[in-house]
Amino acid sequence: MLNNRPRHILSSDQFDREFLDYLYQLVNLIRRYDKSKEGLLYLKSLLPHVRAMLYFTQPSTRTFMSFHSACNILGVSTSEIRDSATSSEKKGESIEDSLRTFSSYVDLIVMRSTEAGLCERIAALLDNTPRPVPIINAGSGPDEHPTQALLDIYTLRRSFHGNQIDGKRICMVGDLKRGRTVRSLSKLLANYRDVAITFASPEAFRIEQDLRDCLTRRGVAFTETEDFEGAIRDADAIYMTRIQDEWDTGRESAAVDHSGFCLHLEHMRRIKPDCVIMHPLPRRDEIDPLIDSDPRAKYWRQERNGMWVRVALIMILMGVDHQVMLPDKSVATS
Amino acid sequence: MLNNRPRHILSSDQFDREFLDYLYQLVNLIRRYDKSKEGLLYLKSLLPHVRAMLYFTQPSTRTFMSFHSACNILGVSTSEIRDSATSSEKKGESIEDSLRTFSSYVDLIVMRSTEAGLCERIAALLDNTPRPVPIINAGSGPDEHPTQALLDIYTLRRSFHGNQIDGKRICMVGDLKRGRTVRSLSKLLANYRDVAITFASPEAFRIEQDLRDCLTRRGVAFTETEDFEGAIRDADAIYMTRIQDEWDTGRESAAVDHSGFCLHLEHMRRIKPDCVIMHPLPRRDEIDPLIDSDPRAKYWRQERNGMWVRVALIMILMGVDHQVMLPDKSVATS
Amino acid sequence: MLNNRPRHILSSDQFDREFLDYLYQLVNLIRRYDKSKEGLLYLKSLLPHVRAMLYFTQPSTRTFMSFHSACNILGVSTSEIRDSATSSEKKGESIEDSLRTFSSYVDLIVMRSTEAGLCERIAALLDNTPRPVPIINAGSGPDEHPTQALLDIYTLRRSFHGNQIDGKRICMVGDLKRGRTVRSLSKLLANYRDVAITFASPEAFRIEQDLRDCLTRRGVAFTETEDFEGAIRDADAIYMTRIQDEWDTGRESAAVDHSGFCLHLEHMRRIKPDCVIMHPLPRRDEIDPLIDSDPRAKYWRQERNGMWVRVALIMILMGVDHQVMLPDKSVATS
Repeated sequence: MLNNRPRHILSSDQFDREFLDYLYQLVNLIRRYDKSKEGLLYLKSLLPHVRAMLYFTQPSTRTFMSFHSACNILGVSTSEIRDSATSSEKKGESIEDSLRTFSSYVDLIVMRSTEAGLCERIAALLDNTPRPVPIINAGSGPDEHPTQALLDIYTLRRSFHGNQIDGKRICMVGDLKRGRTVRSLSKLLANYRDVAITFASPEAFRIEQDLRDCLTRRGVAFTETEDFEGAIRDADAIYMTRIQDEWDTGRESAAVDHSGFCLHLEHMRRIKPDCVIMHPLPRRDEIDPLIDSDPRAKYWRQERNGMWVRVALIMILMGVDHQVMLPDKSVATS
Repeated sequence: MLNNRPRHILSSDQFDREFLDYLYQLVNLIRRYDKSKEGLLYLKSLLPHVRAMLYFTQPSTRTFMSFHSACNILGVSTSEIRDSATSSEKKGESIEDSLRTFSSYVDLIVMRSTEAGLCERIAALLDNTPRPVPIINAGSGPDEHPTQALLDIYTLRRSFHGNQIDGKRICMVGDLKRGRTVRSLSKLLANYRDVAITFASPEAFRIEQDLRDCLTRRGVAFTETEDFEGAIRDADAIYMTRIQDEWDTGRESAAVDHSGFCLHLEHMRRIKPDCVIMHPLPRRDEIDPLIDSDPRAKYWRQERNGMWVRVALIMILMGVDHQVMLPDKSVATS
Repeated sequence: MLNNRPRHILSSDQFDREFLDYLYQLVNLIRRYDKSKEGLLYLKSLLPHVRAMLYFTQPSTRTFMSFHSACNILGVSTSEIRDSATSSEKKGESIEDSLRTFSSYVDLIVMRSTEAGLCERIAALLDNTPRPVPIINAGSGPDEHPTQALLDIYTLRRSFHGNQIDGKRICMVGDLKRGRTVRSLSKLLANYRDVAITFASPEAFRIEQDLRDCLTRRGVAFTETEDFEGAIRDADAIYMTRIQDEWDTGRESAAVDHSGFCLHLEHMRRIKPDCVIMHPLPRRDEIDPLIDSDPRAKYWRQERNGMWVRVALIMILMGVDHQVMLPDKSVATS
């Protein structure tokens, strides 16, 4: 069982190797229940008494649907906010009051907002009330998207031979400056041994200095390059990302030529025969759709993996993970 | 049992008489479960392990609610999109990628859009992935609305003596040019013998040539007229529709006088004493609300029938129809 | 058991002392089931065969979430409208037709709108159809918000020693002219003996004449004052409200100085040591957040009480209240 059970999922900094190993073992066990109606009904019997609020003031259909489905799988009832402003806020209510209100109706809050640090603030506020509830950060502004990083690592693990991330060479491509998935994933990779990261991007979209400092501090080897073709050649995994122009203050993205950082069919002969190709999606032109049918393309599985990782995280927060991990339940999965 | 089980519900062209007879028998059996809590719980036990996505980028509260309720009845968990644009599309994602994403979380997609042919395209796309899911067309642009046609036929059958549509005279009224329900229903009527259709509309709203050709090819007798009062006099069923001015490119609807194609209280003495009055709803002034309490007005039942027809279609697609059709389940309904 | 079971919840005028006493006893019993997974599953087993429509054309995240959670607790499936206009209404459908449509899919309608009297009108319409469904008024324009009044009274009862409202002095503060919660609550208080109400507000926001007449007619003692500090000093309960500037026709609210009608930390020494502080929320600056941790602040509990009162009301309307009230169920709560 888990020694340090988290009360909230706020940042990818909070996870150590022990947690990651436990989480991924749990995900693998959970997925065995997906094979039959009986298995799925067992999962659905775990949390039918629990109500969750999906508070998505930064809209994201993809992440929303993934969490919503994860709740459905566990029998969790959901209430949802998918607007950029709730009606109470329009009436002048503080965001703290809004979230304390919602917390009084539910047992779990999944929140996504454009405001960095909001999740931590709300978690601390609720922890000081008579009825605290767990918070899951589903993306907070430009800084964190911890569940995306967890699902990325899970997909890497599952795609590599022997589920081994240690010693692998990961190439991250695209808008590395503003893509929060790249930040969260890079930090999480520090939990593995001898991982080498290559950051391939146009000059304008290089990683930020604080990430460089963090990786150096944690002893992660990394290089930065503008040579996309060179970078992908010996990569064990290529993590493509899109230009995050929603964070533009002017039109700076349009001024940058990123066409040399797109994966085309002709690249497929030049990369490793077992290279793992990932993308947090949505994509634009970074990956040619013709690549989708190549067995090395893992981004669609990555998407579905996200749902199962979120199922596992909710189980851990609500304290029912042992109902899948315990040996006496293993009959149901055999 | 059904010989040719459909994988998707895309077009009213795909149904033959055998399917229609099977479907309506199934609907009648399902409705027997609506009489008690036990019956409703039995229906809800059929698909609690299934998740559906209601993807309604062409908003329609009515059709949405009907499908949503159908899912609730069967215990199906739902995720929903009810906006004209999803946030992923705003980020530049193709509609194919969006729907493949959603398909990775769910087991069934119900979709309504303004784009003709989109359902077929997505169904074909998903059929070529490792995890295809059934698609139900809940209205695609101006061309098809197959579940509406199926519920219309069901309502006709159920309202006529002996559940007999063969030999009946059906009068369709209103905007026959742009109403997709009229198109889908007319085509489905070709499955019945000796049906005669009278299309009564202002000159500007007559049916399109391709529908004429289709009916001629399939041997359905029809006439077109501007004489509303003459047309309804000996009709066995009157199918009223509203002017579809949302498809106007300019203000062409306002230029047409359709006041002579509305059903008023005084008409009720002149139509058949057992005439069936239908309307796909919403209505404007085509039917005087005072007619609602006349026993010949079937449009409110037609609405509720739609929900049950959709329950039956979902059961067929998910392969649980035999759990209501099989003789050993008949005890539960007796 | 209840002698006069209501068919709808439309107005706070419809409740007598017998109903209130029954309702609050029921709420207290229901809450005992909240202590365990088994208890919550029992509540969820009461109405899993029921479908409700939450029709919120006047948006209100708070009240919506409260009702939505209440439905989830009872296993009720929900469909929701949270826009100011439904797509059918945009197509020219009357609101009566829209609601009759939705009623054909569900067993219960909870509705909130800006239109006074709409709930009564729809309830009367549906009562004349073959398939009437209960209506709950979740706020109708400026006139009524009966479930808020019921939860306010419940919170008062539960917060006072001996659950005794008779003889208490209640001070209501703020925008008493336009706050419908003040109207509904004041009327409900007429069911208790020797209650004295003090209305403290700026001159511009005094209660309306019809409320004065109503209270006089029903023998409720009340005074009106602009002296906030004097009014709260010997109050047994202080009911704070916010300025309802969404009803402004011009900018009249901004012209009024309400700063003297806000509760600050320094007031806490001057009010009674067991005074009950309430607020229907959302708040702006009427109550300093530093007061939240004072044990006399009951507004957060009031919020959660609302959910349980709504659970009880739905149980009464759907006729399952005896499943919690009957003595042979008491084992489950012991």
